[in-house]
Amino acid sequence: MRTSDGDSGRPSRPTLALIAAEAGVSTATVSKVLNGRTDVAPATRERVEALLRTHNYPGPGGGTRRTRRSGLIDLVLAGLDSPWAVEILRGVEAECAEHGTGVVVSLVRDDDACPPSWQNLPALHHSDGVILVTSRMTARQRDQLERAGVGLVLVDPVNLPAADIPSVGATNWAGGLAATEHLIELGHRRVAVIGGPADMLCTQARVDGYRTALEQAGIEVDRELVRYGDFHHESGFARTRELLELPDPPTAIFAGSDQQAMGAYQAARLAGLRVPDDLSVVGFDDLPTCEWLSPPLTTVRQPLEEMGRVAARTLLQLLDGRPPLTPRVELATDLRVRASTAPPPAAVPPPAAAPSAASHPPEDR
Amino acid sequence: MRTSDGDSGRPSRPTLALIAAEAGVSTATVSKVLNGRTDVAPATRERVEALLRTHNYPGPGGGTRRTRRSGLIDLVLAGLDSPWAVEILRGVEAECAEHGTGVVVSLVRDDDACPPSWQNLPALHHSDGVILVTSRMTARQRDQLERAGVGLVLVDPVNLPAADIPSVGATNWAGGLAATEHLIELGHRRVAVIGGPADMLCTQARVDGYRTALEQAGIEVDRELVRYGDFHHESGFARTRELLELPDPPTAIFAGSDQQAMGAYQAARLAGLRVPDDLSVVGFDDLPTCEWLSPPLTTVRQPLEEMGRVAARTLLQLLDGRPPLTPRVELATDLRVRASTAPPPAAVPPPAAAPSAASHPPEDR
Repeated sequence: MRTSDGDSGRPSRPTLALIAAEAGVSTATVSKVLNGRTDVAPATRERVEALLRTHNYPGPGGGTRRTRRSGLIDLVLAGLDSPWAVEILRGVEAECAEHGTGVVVSLVRDDDACPPSWQNLPALHHSDGVILVTSRMTARQRDQLERAGVGLVLVDPVNLPAADIPSVGATNWAGGLAATEHLIELGHRRVAVIGGPADMLCTQARVDGYRTALEQAGIEVDRELVRYGDFHHESGFARTRELLELPDPPTAIFAGSDQQAMGAYQAARLAGLRVPDDLSVVGFDDLPTCEWLSPPLTTVRQPLEEMGRVAARTLLQLLDGRPPLTPRVELATDLRVRASTAPPPAAVPPPAAAPSAASHPPEDR
Repeated sequence: MRTSDGDSGRPSRPTLALIAAEAGVSTATVSKVLNGRTDVAPATRERVEALLRTHNYPGPGGGTRRTRRSGLIDLVLAGLDSPWAVEILRGVEAECAEHGTGVVVSLVRDDDACPPSWQNLPALHHSDGVILVTSRMTARQRDQLERAGVGLVLVDPVNLPAADIPSVGATNWAGGLAATEHLIELGHRRVAVIGGPADMLCTQARVDGYRTALEQAGIEVDRELVRYGDFHHESGFARTRELLELPDPPTAIFAGSDQQAMGAYQAARLAGLRVPDDLSVVGFDDLPTCEWLSPPLTTVRQPLEEMGRVAARTLLQLLDGRPPLTPRVELATDLRVRASTAPPPAAVPPPAAAPSAASHPPEDR
């Protein structure tokens, strides 16, 4: 909630409840108009906007450009422990700099319903809006932000956002499809996937793309080859070790992040396998470091910086009373083939005498 | 300069010039008191502080705790193109979060004297202070910040800061010494160094540590083996290629950053050399990625997150009117030995007949 301390100097504003009463709608509806949401009936929107204008309410949706911006938005990240975050930040910062807007960076410190840092976030300083990156948002948190009357845009939301909150992501499904098709085209039949957390939207989309690619190639999905981690090196390492210990291990791994792929490299090395001769590895993200790995990593590029830019642009437009045409934007992913993928090691051909028309010849390693 | 827009709601303040005139000192002196600098005579400081209190001036050094903080500081980075920056940011954010202070992150977009983004920085939003990371600061820029009346702390300043501006860094000289001693102890005699930009303080200190280690071991510094780059992968790659093409190439390289070290790995690989069997490599920074490289990188750890924390703590204390006891703090570096360093490839022993007591036997490769 916006504080009304001595610094603000703003004329005292009617509460949303008062405007709601005057308009004959719920407070939630006023919030929606204020935040530029699209799920409000046009007539209602007009009535509320008129009242907001009458009361000179400085909310984003009033149909009038806000003249008293704080000039600040909040970028709230789930963590700063990955180069991933800095790519998003770079895009947000670049876009905001062009619009004279400062970016306040903070972290969600607690996965709980309402961590104090998060709770106070819009109250600690004047902020026009929030970009929330890969966070799980509870209904309570959303209510809180609505009541704070600030704009909100999500980047890569963990769970399905309310339909009216704008969000920016990448074409994760298409990325999973492209990575897996690339491996199949190289001749791989035992292709494993290591996703991020199983309950994250982006993970689900990537794994579904993987499944579809296999199914389209007539390869049955082996549940043993579908694993989940947390996007960090360690989980890529641990899951790869498990996969390589299977009786019929994969010849290729599609990892959920470039960092997981680096973990896979390490596990392969310790198992005495060479990448890509013995094991192909595909990453996800295309961090700047990829081309400097040994071997340079084939990966699915997410336009992270551009995602940050689009999120910032969407938020700034929202604050100008211009809600996005579509609440969800997905930027295209793009497979970057480098040196970590190759045809699988030659399989021992099945004995010529064996008449069984097995579509999956056993592969010895 | 702090703007006095309608939002601020503050009583109009006397200019520094007025206070200076009343105190019978220069504006610069008032700025110094305001910013908690230590190079002001105690009697002068008291006189100025009294006037600042009388005028209820909200500057940091007034001897009174500021009651009207914006609750924001600016973290200004030279770039966001390295995982290095995110480590600093993590520390600054963590410390500030504990003090309910928001961190506005922005970049210096231009190396020019006064880039507009930088110029407007304290004016775009209310900010209590600035942490400036690895930037070159001109006298004009410093004046501007002084006039803005905000606190300033430097992290890893490029050039020598004014003695009264607090700065935080790492023991770069000791790091350079430890890295080079480690290589000498392994038996290396042809040790190269790739620094960052030659005019950066941290580079100079590291290269001096390198020189001292060699000299203490009785090894003459070969100028051919001292190269400079820009901390990025590319320069590590380019400089290593040049070094490996020398008639008498080094058997070990001390790189100026972990990213440069990754570039050195790549150059070694392309030259058909194995790390560490044919070429030892030491990095600098200890980014989280180091232990996931193949082979895991021996490197000099800079406590980057802690440097960020100390910078933030120093600034917040400065804003409370408590200037640091010493303007320059250097946090300890620490050599992390992993798998990228080993004894040099066995040198062909000099012919037994050669009687010259050469302290540098020629090493064939």
